[in-house]
Amino acid sequence: MSLGEFDLIARHFTRPARRSPLGVGDDCALIAPAPGMQLAVSSDMLVEGRHFLSTVAPERLGHKALAVNLSDLAACGAKPLAYTLALALPRADDTFLAGLARGLHALADRHDLDLVGGDTTAGPLNLCLTIFGEVPTGAALLRSGARPGDELWVSHPLGEDEPGWLGDARLALEVFRGTPGLRVPGEAFDHLRLAMECPEPRVALGLALRGVASSAIDVSDGLLGDLQHVLRRSGPDGRPLGVVLDADALPRSPLMRAQTAALQHECLLAGGDDYELLFTAAPADHGAVRAAGQRSATGVRCIGRITAESGTTVHDRHGHRVATPWASFDHFRS
Amino acid sequence: MSLGEFDLIARHFTRPARRSPLGVGDDCALIAPAPGMQLAVSSDMLVEGRHFLSTVAPERLGHKALAVNLSDLAACGAKPLAYTLALALPRADDTFLAGLARGLHALADRHDLDLVGGDTTAGPLNLCLTIFGEVPTGAALLRSGARPGDELWVSHPLGEDEPGWLGDARLALEVFRGTPGLRVPGEAFDHLRLAMECPEPRVALGLALRGVASSAIDVSDGLLGDLQHVLRRSGPDGRPLGVVLDADALPRSPLMRAQTAALQHECLLAGGDDYELLFTAAPADHGAVRAAGQRSATGVRCIGRITAESGTTVHDRHGHRVATPWASFDHFRS
Repeated sequence: MSLGEFDLIARHFTRPARRSPLGVGDDCALIAPAPGMQLAVSSDMLVEGRHFLSTVAPERLGHKALAVNLSDLAACGAKPLAYTLALALPRADDTFLAGLARGLHALADRHDLDLVGGDTTAGPLNLCLTIFGEVPTGAALLRSGARPGDELWVSHPLGEDEPGWLGDARLALEVFRGTPGLRVPGEAFDHLRLAMECPEPRVALGLALRGVASSAIDVSDGLLGDLQHVLRRSGPDGRPLGVVLDADALPRSPLMRAQTAALQHECLLAGGDDYELLFTAAPADHGAVRAAGQRSATGVRCIGRITAESGTTVHDRHGHRVATPWASFDHFRS
Repeated sequence: MSLGEFDLIARHFTRPARRSPLGVGDDCALIAPAPGMQLAVSSDMLVEGRHFLSTVAPERLGHKALAVNLSDLAACGAKPLAYTLALALPRADDTFLAGLARGLHALADRHDLDLVGGDTTAGPLNLCLTIFGEVPTGAALLRSGARPGDELWVSHPLGEDEPGWLGDARLALEVFRGTPGLRVPGEAFDHLRLAMECPEPRVALGLALRGVASSAIDVSDGLLGDLQHVLRRSGPDGRPLGVVLDADALPRSPLMRAQTAALQHECLLAGGDDYELLFTAAPADHGAVRAAGQRSATGVRCIGRITAESGTTVHDRHGHRVATPWASFDHFRS
């Protein structure tokens, strides 16, 4: 980076830290969790062409980079505190940096989150965020807490008109790819695109589920795939638990309902980039889960049940087995 | 990443966390600083072609990626705790990953450091590490604590035969570049190359300087350039402090002493990639600084003095001004 580029970064990203003892500008940032709290930490790297298209608006890229990290905190039931941003840029572009910063700052402000440090370098476009949240010692939602008999839940937007329903990010990607046979009217595409570019992390729901959910994960690589991490880590002696899942119970948008059944199943069960919370809770906590959803203004839907026996069974409302030809769970590792 | 690539990553990087409540494999890692301690956090991103050459041995790349982060903790006087690794890889290459992991694990073990999380994705080769250390509340060494009259110090290896003296990384780079007029015999190059590829973070010295140094920074972008950050942040009301520096007092290797005076000055004062600690202390603490060096088995050399008046003056032992044509401090920002 030239000196002018240092200046550009400073102009767009330097803001006073509000809650951290020491923010941007020293060798390290200093963070102090409150007494009795543990720090939850997560890193995500976003690469152009893989996690976002070169055509994405910089503001949406900023939003998404932070949203996927917030989603990891949500899945642990952690309260957001601070984040660092490391950035590789092919060139210092004022318009791009201004947009990126706007998207980051807007979402950070909504979650009272400080940008406390980072790094900037020349290189192929790459964003690496590390996020910090706090959670009372022992209260973090883990992937390993599911028990046989637990109900399986997934979050969703409250209103049908809200963007970001399960599977919609994948549906938007199919539109980008020009997949034939899609039923997406042109005027609906901008709305659909929000699901892919502006996911809404379920932070409030994650907090409300502390002490209620037995396990949780956020859906980033596809619901069935991410579910395998929970089943593997929750099983006794390395033997995964199983699940019976009702495909018809999966929440979906009106646009999704207009697609073929096969495409719906693929988008809903293997789509990825959803950033909904997938979590389990004892049947006795069914009401507590619903209350957590209401308290956090987030939809929650019961979609299945955890079994002691390994294996993933997906059926429809009539009890017929649903084919999942795109899924191969055997090789997933938690 | 394909499933096979997930397996490769898991094979090389999954190790039990020794000191962290929850390590690799959940949505977040959990870290708990001891009571009364703050967490010091730093992120660094390394890009191929910029921070390392494509010809570097993977093991040395692993060492260096962690060393530059440890150096940030050292500059804050923080004790290493844990780190996360986010990795973009053009392809999953078993030999490369094995070497990278070996280099990371070896240095991590020497500093009792847990790898607690991260991310892996396909993309142009990029490593982003975030490191966590702990420091008693209020005891962190900051860039902002230098005072007029303070002595300026820089660290160095203890023995002349040890690799990694100030400026040697830059000298190795000049050899790689084929710069004419260098005086480096062929058999000395492997030794010189260690300075560039295997820097030794001054963690023990940073810890020993708690309560002794008034400010500290690690030399990554060149001694004079990094010094400007200290002068700017330590100055009252946004007016930077100044420095008078004795170029002849700068510690250097026998190989460096064989070069022309102009090249020596450029490598020593503007080289970069040194990862020595540059710090200030009150003259009354001169003996305490020497004791900290001995306690940490690290060389320390007094090279100048901080002044109330802004400006950077470099002279030789005869009091003659040393030209620094490659330096332009005006535009540096702290």
